[in-house]
Amino acid sequence: MKKLLLLLLLTGSIAFAQADRVEPPFWWAGMNNPELQIMFYGKNIAQYTPSVSNNVVITGVVKTENPNYIFVTIDTKNVPASDLVFSFKNKNKVAFTQKYSLKKRKANSGYRDSYDSCDMMYLIMPDRFANGNAGNDNTKNTNEKADRNNPNGRHGGDIEGIIKNLDYIKELGATAVWVTPLCEDNDARGSYHGYGQSDVYKIDPRYGTNEDYLRLSSEVKKKGMKLVLDYVTNHWGAEHWMYKDLPMYNWVHQFPGYSQSNYRMATQFDTNASKIDQRQCVDGWFVPSMPDLNQSNPLVLNYLKQNAIWWIEYADLDGFRVDTYSYNDKDGISKWTKAITDEYPHFNIAGEVWMNDQAQMAYWQKDSKVGAIESYNSHLPTVMDFTGMDALAQAFNEDDAGWDKGTMKMYNNLANDFLYPNINNLLIFAENHDTGRINEIYKNDFKKYRMAMAILATERGIPQLYYGSEIGMAGDKGKGDGDIRHDFPGGWAADAHNAFTAAGRNAQEKQYFDLTSKLFTWRKNKEVIHTGKTTQYIPDNNVYVYFRYNDKETVMVAVNNSGESRTFKSARFAESIKNHKSGTDVITGKTVNVTGDITMEPKSVIVLELK
Amino acid sequence: MKKLLLLLLLTGSIAFAQADRVEPPFWWAGMNNPELQIMFYGKNIAQYTPSVSNNVVITGVVKTENPNYIFVTIDTKNVPASDLVFSFKNKNKVAFTQKYSLKKRKANSGYRDSYDSCDMMYLIMPDRFANGNAGNDNTKNTNEKADRNNPNGRHGGDIEGIIKNLDYIKELGATAVWVTPLCEDNDARGSYHGYGQSDVYKIDPRYGTNEDYLRLSSEVKKKGMKLVLDYVTNHWGAEHWMYKDLPMYNWVHQFPGYSQSNYRMATQFDTNASKIDQRQCVDGWFVPSMPDLNQSNPLVLNYLKQNAIWWIEYADLDGFRVDTYSYNDKDGISKWTKAITDEYPHFNIAGEVWMNDQAQMAYWQKDSKVGAIESYNSHLPTVMDFTGMDALAQAFNEDDAGWDKGTMKMYNNLANDFLYPNINNLLIFAENHDTGRINEIYKNDFKKYRMAMAILATERGIPQLYYGSEIGMAGDKGKGDGDIRHDFPGGWAADAHNAFTAAGRNAQEKQYFDLTSKLFTWRKNKEVIHTGKTTQYIPDNNVYVYFRYNDKETVMVAVNNSGESRTFKSARFAESIKNHKSGTDVITGKTVNVTGDITMEPKSVIVLELK
Repeated sequence: MKKLLLLLLLTGSIAFAQADRVEPPFWWAGMNNPELQIMFYGKNIAQYTPSVSNNVVITGVVKTENPNYIFVTIDTKNVPASDLVFSFKNKNKVAFTQKYSLKKRKANSGYRDSYDSCDMMYLIMPDRFANGNAGNDNTKNTNEKADRNNPNGRHGGDIEGIIKNLDYIKELGATAVWVTPLCEDNDARGSYHGYGQSDVYKIDPRYGTNEDYLRLSSEVKKKGMKLVLDYVTNHWGAEHWMYKDLPMYNWVHQFPGYSQSNYRMATQFDTNASKIDQRQCVDGWFVPSMPDLNQSNPLVLNYLKQNAIWWIEYADLDGFRVDTYSYNDKDGISKWTKAITDEYPHFNIAGEVWMNDQAQMAYWQKDSKVGAIESYNSHLPTVMDFTGMDALAQAFNEDDAGWDKGTMKMYNNLANDFLYPNINNLLIFAENHDTGRINEIYKNDFKKYRMAMAILATERGIPQLYYGSEIGMAGDKGKGDGDIRHDFPGGWAADAHNAFTAAGRNAQEKQYFDLTSKLFTWRKNKEVIHTGKTTQYIPDNNVYVYFRYNDKETVMVAVNNSGESRTFKSARFAESIKNHKSGTDVITGKTVNVTGDITMEPKSVIVLELK
Repeated sequence: MKKLLLLLLLTGSIAFAQADRVEPPFWWAGMNNPELQIMFYGKNIAQYTPSVSNNVVITGVVKTENPNYIFVTIDTKNVPASDLVFSFKNKNKVAFTQKYSLKKRKANSGYRDSYDSCDMMYLIMPDRFANGNAGNDNTKNTNEKADRNNPNGRHGGDIEGIIKNLDYIKELGATAVWVTPLCEDNDARGSYHGYGQSDVYKIDPRYGTNEDYLRLSSEVKKKGMKLVLDYVTNHWGAEHWMYKDLPMYNWVHQFPGYSQSNYRMATQFDTNASKIDQRQCVDGWFVPSMPDLNQSNPLVLNYLKQNAIWWIEYADLDGFRVDTYSYNDKDGISKWTKAITDEYPHFNIAGEVWMNDQAQMAYWQKDSKVGAIESYNSHLPTVMDFTGMDALAQAFNEDDAGWDKGTMKMYNNLANDFLYPNINNLLIFAENHDTGRINEIYKNDFKKYRMAMAILATERGIPQLYYGSEIGMAGDKGKGDGDIRHDFPGGWAADAHNAFTAAGRNAQEKQYFDLTSKLFTWRKNKEVIHTGKTTQYIPDNNVYVYFRYNDKETVMVAVNNSGESRTFKSARFAESIKNHKSGTDVITGKTVNVTGDITMEPKSVIVLELK
């Protein structure tokens, strides 16, 4: 009893040696934005008055309703890389000090390159890709334990697993790797997807350490590829340490009881929308386990900006994908995006804007002008071509073309390119970790897969593949997320066969992999695909033909999506074929004459480099 | 034989007394655009040199490959209303002269008012509306004879029939009348629709005379309504006199053989479109009987501009509807539209841009900015809300609301209003003369019709009704155009009953008419509907609520589209209801409390004027 009393007294008033948390844990000298807001967290820390060494100027101190937080803003302009010391005083007596490093930036860090339409991005869910280190499958401080038999459980995949298979990824033709979130997600169940983060400065120990992530970044670069971090601005997990001791009530969106988003993103641009619906869309929570962050709170926004920049600088990143982009506070996410692209002008960010209407997606791209009445600039460089995904998924299952069926769907999708400020900055894909697997939709009809890959390898935009589909993996969204996120065969020591190696792949896996690898390896150096213009022709009888061209090269893509053999006249394409006589098919290597009739097998595709 | 020889000699070289045609047949002094290009037509007329009296200056003479035409441009600036005389000389000898009137314009003619969102437009197909003059059903010089038993034949309706029923139209609540084309269409078959015109300066004698049309315009005005002409820039009929003796080969689009439009209007804004497809869309013919005019030919364009302006000035018109707007040469139709709105700055023109995507329709509206890459300005004030039509038609047939079913379709349509430069200038409608009849789609379920009319009477835009639906007329597009263009009962002397009069209407007709009349009569003076703002709420359980409001008034519209009774809390709409306590339902006259729960019957609508 006496002991307890003593403890209470100590906790209440006596100084401690360190803050429990300092975030960002360090920073860099010479950033474009010299302002740095450091959050110090500790029991009753707000009672102290901060000062800092090295003649650095404190430009602001913010205390909130929670005395365990203090936010200190310093001006780092012209401050060299150095170790600063923050002193926290109580009645003019230094109660404790805190070292803080301003590190030296990598040369040219601000002007780093990023991914663009020259790249092919490979999307990995790390828990389901490869278990490189079985020793970290469970850890003492993380709630959910590995259970490979549970489709919604942790399976043990990790950073080491990715590192070990980078050659595989490279062989496939990928030049960028998008890994779904790797920071700690300490939810008791279903934490494997990582979107309910509990500490955004720490890699989940079941995936590895922060140092492992640096190593991943470095190894990816060594292979000539780029690393893309999946950033989540919209929400954290309910296990986030700050959610358990909120700096302020409105750090997250609060309601009486649980209040869910209406998921109606149209409210964000609809000039007729009611305020209550607009707010509910972005302030409502995505799911009960994910507290919805309030990006209209400047402290929250700044926290998210700095955390994002910290990861770029710390892990030498090449780009972001941003989750649920259009569910964020609209002004907040615009400021967040601008802050990052102001700091890194070439940095690419692909936002998840999942809509079924190109104008609505175009609205979210940087410098969009589609909003006739209201003006808004998200500053988001890249949006995702979800209508293109729908078109791909549906088109090849429609042998008989009607007014708007079959390949007309792809034609119609490209027809609306005129709405996008930057058509090269469209992420194009057949599927991702939230959709039905394309091989399920195609019932593993390889001919359909071949057509889809030929399209993704030659259409405008940044192609993105989803791990596993390149070896024919299928999965039904209707059966739950677990079914579209199967373990990659060979990623676990116990796996009966290993599709990561040519020798290990069975006939079907080999067929899928070889085609995919051939197309995307070819694409790597094809400027005409990366940045060329497009000319498309109205599908005739479900035969769809388009050309990619620049001053030097022309590529002709023809898809016969009908169930029958088709012969068509090349003369119709004279304005694109010009004086070319033949082309070499990238897939078969065969020469195809383009001066007369062209005959194509049912459900086939040719990708001709004209000569 | 001697006689024939003499005739040939005369025709070949000897002067005649008059040109066979002079178009425009007269003009006006004091037009904003002082340039006037007069076409003189006559056998070998191009051999003559024109001059003109009254010190008027000829600024240009154009002769074409056809010697029967001569185009003479004069400058009418500062020329007072007067009768000019054109002299046509051959070797300095006046061969013949031609009087030409520059008439005095009506006061303020250039600044005439037009239709706008204050109006309700009633669409009439004159052949099927009312036969006011049985004496003109057949004429000597027109090919097709009346046959009321043929769904695709001439039935005898005419201008007199419209004039006789203007009180009916006014009683319905209409303030503008759009009549499908009235100029001569001398096709041998199916000429009743009038879109294949054979003389664009002359009313079809089966409809009446040019003077009858002036009388229609005058009578419409006397009733406080507006007359809207249906102009066709895209094509004429194959019986057009000029098509039979073309001024130049490229007056119309020529191909080896017949070449049809691909009807893919996306080619007109798709930045990826091939030139061959773009051209085929606008240069290809709509149907074999309609030669496709070449608006890129300056003579054609000028002919169409002047013809359009001639009708406005001659018949004192209040607006245009333009057929197949997006099938015209893109630059040509923009210049045509600009020429008219330059001459008449307040003149409204609604273009038929029939697409299934709001961004694509918004592209065609004046000052649209949706085209991110290419800039184009059609100068077209009003576009047609075809996606709204689809939404209306589908929504009320879907009792069970899913993610995007039922009233969500209407909500989603309004959600894209942000794309339109001017949402008040959207023509809104449930149907027109080219679509299935709404009562057929609704299977004459009056409750659905009531909901649809309540929407059209309260949504933003310019409502347009299609003749006959207001008395419950149905018609199936699948059975052919004849089925959606039935004769209005009572329009023919022999008709068994007459729905034009209250006494003549049967119970169903009365129910439909009374509702329609009540709603649109109420709308006439409702500024809050004409120009108010809209706030809409996400449909909940297929109950859709929106408000129209301005500084003075608020109207609440609630639609229960489910098959069950629904009770909902008004608190959700607090931001729109504000401190109002109740509202009077425009349809029933009943007072509805809006401070607590509101209960609605299945498939019902309330339109509350809040107080």
